Parts: sequence; C-alpha cells; structure tokens
Amino acid sequence: MADQTFSPGLDGIIAADTKVSYLDVDHEQIIIKGYDLIELAQKLSYPDVAYLLIHGDIPTKDKAKDFCNKLSRQGELSIDLEELLSLFPKSMNLMDALRTGISFIASQEDPDFLKNTSIQANTDMGIRILSKAPTIAVNAYHAINGDPFIHPDVNMGYSENFLYMIQGKHPDRISKEVFDRILTCYIEHEMPNSTFAARVIVSTLSDIYGAVVGAVASLKGPLHGGANEAAVNTILEIYEQGGVDGAENVILDKLSKKERIMGFGHRVYMRKYDPRAFLLTKYIPKLIDRLPEGKDLYSIYLTIEKVMLREKGLYPNMDYPAGMLLYLLQIPIPLFTPIFLCSRIAGLIAHVIEQHENNRLYRPRVVYSGLRDLHPTVNTPISPI
Amino acid sequence: MADQTFSPGLDGIIAADTKVSYLDVDHEQIIIKGYDLIELAQKLSYPDVAYLLIHGDIPTKDKAKDFCNKLSRQGELSIDLEELLSLFPKSMNLMDALRTGISFIASQEDPDFLKNTSIQANTDMGIRILSKAPTIAVNAYHAINGDPFIHPDVNMGYSENFLYMIQGKHPDRISKEVFDRILTCYIEHEMPNSTFAARVIVSTLSDIYGAVVGAVASLKGPLHGGANEAAVNTILEIYEQGGVDGAENVILDKLSKKERIMGFGHRVYMRKYDPRAFLLTKYIPKLIDRLPEGKDLYSIYLTIEKVMLREKGLYPNMDYPAGMLLYLLQIPIPLFTPIFLCSRIAGLIAHVIEQHENNRLYRPRVVYSGLRDLHPTVNTPISPI
Repeated sequence: MADQTFSPGLDGIIAADTKVSYLDVDHEQIIIKGYDLIELAQKLSYPDVAYLLIHGDIPTKDKAKDFCNKLSRQGELSIDLEELLSLFPKSMNLMDALRTGISFIASQEDPDFLKNTSIQANTDMGIRILSKAPTIAVNAYHAINGDPFIHPDVNMGYSENFLYMIQGKHPDRISKEVFDRILTCYIEHEMPNSTFAARVIVSTLSDIYGAVVGAVASLKGPLHGGANEAAVNTILEIYEQGGVDGAENVILDKLSKKERIMGFGHRVYMRKYDPRAFLLTKYIPKLIDRLPEGKDLYSIYLTIEKVMLREKGLYPNMDYPAGMLLYLLQIPIPLFTPIFLCSRIAGLIAHVIEQHENNRLYRPRVVYSGLRDLHPTVNTPISPI
Repeated sequence: MADQTFSPGLDGIIAADTKVSYLDVDHEQIIIKGYDLIELAQKLSYPDVAYLLIHGDIPTKDKAKDFCNKLSRQGELSIDLEELLSLFPKSMNLMDALRTGISFIASQEDPDFLKNTSIQANTDMGIRILSKAPTIAVNAYHAINGDPFIHPDVNMGYSENFLYMIQGKHPDRISKEVFDRILTCYIEHEMPNSTFAARVIVSTLSDIYGAVVGAVASLKGPLHGGANEAAVNTILEIYEQGGVDGAENVILDKLSKKERIMGFGHRVYMRKYDPRAFLLTKYIPKLIDRLPEGKDLYSIYLTIEKVMLREKGLYPNMDYPAGMLLYLLQIPIPLFTPIFLCSRIAGLIAHVIEQHENNRLYRPRVVYSGLRDLHPTVNTPISPI
C-alpha cells in the first residue's frame, strides 16, 4: 500500500470498464451506447433513448410501442404507496420523498425476484422504477401541498404524461418537446457520483431498488443534482437584488465573496462547453414570453454566463439552461432535481445490468492517518450494556 | 487516462485518508480511533465505543450517561412512522424496511438543518438515526408478522433494550453480554462497501440520512451484510441434509459444485484469522444448551470450519460466529443483517463527519469498451413524446 498515491475524490481513477457511455473530452462528445447523445436528443424521444440504454439498440416501431405500453401500464401507484405519500409532512424534501417511495416499492416485488440479478430481472424491475418514479415525485409534491393526486394518463407519451401530472392540463407541443429534450439530455452521463454510488451498492449483489435509492441520496446533494435548482435560484436572487441593470455588479460581488455560482464548469469537461448546455440554451428564447419577467431573467442569464467566462473561464454546464427552461415551463422548483433523477433512472438501469453481469465487489482501502496504540484506562463498561 | 490500469472493484486502490479506523493486516489488528477493537469489545460496552467513534474519545461517566440518555430518549417512533411500518406487506425484507424507515425519518428534520454539514449537525442527526434504527427494524419485524409493537424501555441500556424489543422480555445477563459484544465487533471496519457507499453519497454534500440509506442498500447484498444470515442458513441446511455425521460429505459436495460458502475469508484479511471471529467463537459453547439441537449445530459449525481451512485455506470471518450466536440467542434470522446495520451506524456517523469536514466529490472515470460512431437511421421520434 505504501507506494500508492491517494487521489481525493478518486479524481482521474478508473472505476469501471463500461459499454454504457463515455465522456469523450477530446471530441467533446457524450457517447451513449455508441451514439452521440446530442444527435439522439435531437432526433429521438426520451423513451427511445431509454430503450437504447436498457436494451442496447434503438427500438423498432413495434418494440417502442411495447416499451411505452409497459411504461404507462406501470405508472399508477398502489393504494399503499398513495397512503405513504399522504404521510409525508409539508416540510418534506421531494428527493427524500422519491428516495422513500422507491425504497418502499421494492416491497411489492416477490422477495426471491429481488435477489435475482439476471439481465431480465434487472430490466423488469428497472422499468417498473422508471414507470413509477414520475408519479411518486409529482404526487408527493401534490400531497405535501394538500392538493389531490393527479393520476397518470395511459394514453399520453412519457414526457407528455409527466408534464400533465405536474400541471394538471395537457401540455402544448413546444412545452413537451423542450421537456423531452431536457429529459434526454439528463438520461446518462458516464460515471457521475450517483451512478458510481449505484454501481458500488449493487456490487454486493444487492438489488436495483437499493441502487436507485442510493443514487437519489447522492443526486440530492448541492454539488450534484441540486445544481439546476441552485442555478435558477441564483438568477432569481440577482433579479430581485439588482434587476437587469445591476446584475453584473451583484454577480461580481458574489464572486468577490467567494460564493459558489452553480451551473458552471464540470470536473470532466474542465474548461470546455457542455454540449448538452449548448443544445438546450437554444430553446430558452422560445419560452421567454411565457413569463412577464422572462426577458429580464434571460438577460440576467446571459450576463451571468458572460461574467463567469470572463472572470473564471468557466462555461455553463447542462444544469444552467435546464434550470432556466424548467422555470420558464412553470414547473415548481422543488421538482427540478427529482425530474433529473427520473430521467437518469434509464442510465442507472444500464449500469446495474452491466455491474451484475461482470461483478466485482467494490472494496477500496484507505490511508490511515489517525492515532495508534491507545488503551482504555478502565476494564469494565462505562455505560450499561 | 491511457496509462492507467483499471483495478476491478477498486481492489487495492486508496479511496480515503481517514482517522476513523484501519485494518492493520501486518499486525492483524482492527484499529478504531487509535484503540484495538478487540480490547474495546472486551472492556467496554457498545454505547461506549459508539461514543468513541462519534466524539473521538472514550467517555467519562457523566458523558456516557448523557449519551445513553440521548439514545434512549430518541428511540421512540413518531405516530407517522408507526403508520408507515403498518403499511409494510408481509413479504417485506427487513433491510428494505430499515432503508425505507430511515429514509422517511429525514423528513422529521427541519429542511435547513438537513443541509447543514457541520460536525454538530451530523452528530445530532446521526445519534437520532442510531437511536431509532433498532426500534424501526424490530417493530417492522413485529408489524409484518401481525404482532403488536414493542416500545423501547428508556430504563434499559442500549443492548438490553434492543434484545428486549426483539423478544418482549428482559434478557438474561449472558444474552445481553454476548449481544453487546456482537454489536461492538460489528461497529466499524475501515472501508467496506457500505461505508464507501455512504462516503461517496455525502461527498455531493448530501445528508447523513441519505448516507445511511445507501449503506443499508449496500449491506443488504449477499456479498456483504447478508453473510451472517447465509452462514447460519448453511449450517441449518447441512444439519437437515446430513446431520452431524453426514456434514463433512455435504460440505465437500457443495464445494465440488462450486457453491459459495458464506462466512469465510475476507478480501483484506486474505488468509489470516479475523480477530473478531476469534473473540466471538469463544462465546458459542456458553450458549449451545439454549437449543435442543445446539450441540449438533456447533459440531457442524466446527466441521465446516475444519473443511474450509483444509480444502480452501480459508478462516472464518466475523459473520460466521455472529450468525451462529444470534441463532442460539433465538433471534429471528431476518433480523441478523439489520442488527449488523444498526451497530454499524456509529461507524458511519464518524465517516460522514470526516467526509464533510474535508470534502472532495467522488467522481472517478471509466474505461469505455463500447461502440462508437453509430447514427440513428431515423430523424423523428419513434415513441410519442
């Protein structure tokens, strides 16, 4: 062990051999099962790309139909799960709601099936989680706000139904198109912390429910999935503090106080542009008329982007335009990170399948820099046994 | 990246600089905050060692009293949590029950406090989880069996109360002593998969509830915490198939079929004896009279140990005697892994505190061995958006 160097955060350490996806930094490309993610997001729909991740190829028309039927058939929640959501207090964080709900639905599986780590079993269980997660997240939101449940509509596509459950009305064409693009851009991204946590967990031959629950717990953190929410909150804060004209000064002031501005930079892309951010930014002008303050917010959005590049040399990552778009779509901010998570479930399924197919328990070692050779000065318990 | 070698399972890779604990393979010693774990287990009680892990030193009498008061005061469950347990179906795995219950209790915190990653906040929240976890695990067991809840008794010590909730009666001296030793032996063990999962999760600055939930999901796996349960099931299976006289043949047959015998070997100890197993094995003869078949089971226990050493060169790890002892204490087998987890929460608290105090996001990289340069043959979505 002595000759090993320790890389904090496992920065630059290879943690898996994968066929799922890759951030090709040299070509600034996100590869998903051999395809360019940006091309997929522009040409296909979220369920098509989810199918690709889970099954390994782009579906035929028949297979796509079958897959979408599976997704919508399983979107409804059980009575027990509805009761669980009604127990959530008003103060509950929606990522905690999703974590608890997904943990709970594992119990609806046959216990022997839960122990099954085959491709088929992981696929079946994974699709079940993918189907139910939007219903859990959205209806937990309604439940803690004292509003009635909105049940999924089996006649709608995945993204349309998701938006419908959030807003209680049929979304227009542009809304569902933008929402679907956002979901596809979030679907998979090599080995971020949440995917890594999921692979670590299932390497004990634990089940996919536990993997997704661990990923929710990880993605909740402000250094990870919380960034889309934080990014839009920064824009709103600057709007309130300085308006369009004062924006540059407010952001410079934040930087001088060493406040962290979320939605910029990425450990792997380093100083290059996130191609997902590049794609999504284009949709913002299409939506700015939806809010009275839309134009002003977009102006501040551009100011922050300009200042961050000039002062810090940092480009936006996906969370920056995604947060802005979700806000313009009038989606409640507490749902931003759950939406990211719901999309990412498709990628997590692919990783769990891959980990179980060629498993090796994750069990790294440590450098110990603590004390040694201490001895208790007493021979009997201090606290009662 | 190209010059890096990939170590599956991060075997031999350093993943943290820690002052919490260390497996000193050269000296066959488990160091916990500077002390030898086996010495701690022999001299102190579980809450004393939990205090050491959380606060960094062995408590004075007053501090120990205060700590135990905190533990017992917070052991009771809220009405909402009791309702949640009553929603669990009969088939529910108890690790899933614990995962769901701990995920749920996060909602009882103030949302701002959940975002607080200070030592004080992590300590307070951690002790809350440590207090409630036994009540959740045990009463989930009672609930799914249709039995009434057994509420914690604030006048008992931690281990006594834990056993009391399981069995509904005051445990005798030997039972609670053995149980306390098992808990202390399980309390902390450097960087097993579950601890690693917890540290990975909180490195996004996510909260300690998510860390523990991820650890439950990991520890559930048969390659990790599930081993104590599996070990005793193997003994029982051999007892039924071959009895004492046929045991050797049954185990040789299993080995020839390449069946995995749980409770032996350990990636880090390699071919040496687990000092915890060495300590705990001594308690088995004290308990074999508690069951009519106790002597026979112990005889089979020794036969398996002998055959595994002779045929495979493997010594028992802690799960082997722990499973046997918990069985002789007449604790229901589905509670074995939850008991391991409840104990380990103290170690997890120490790791979460340490991770948050000197955080670096875990974000490793991958080797990509999948396809490249594919393009969809269609330009419009196959599934509806």
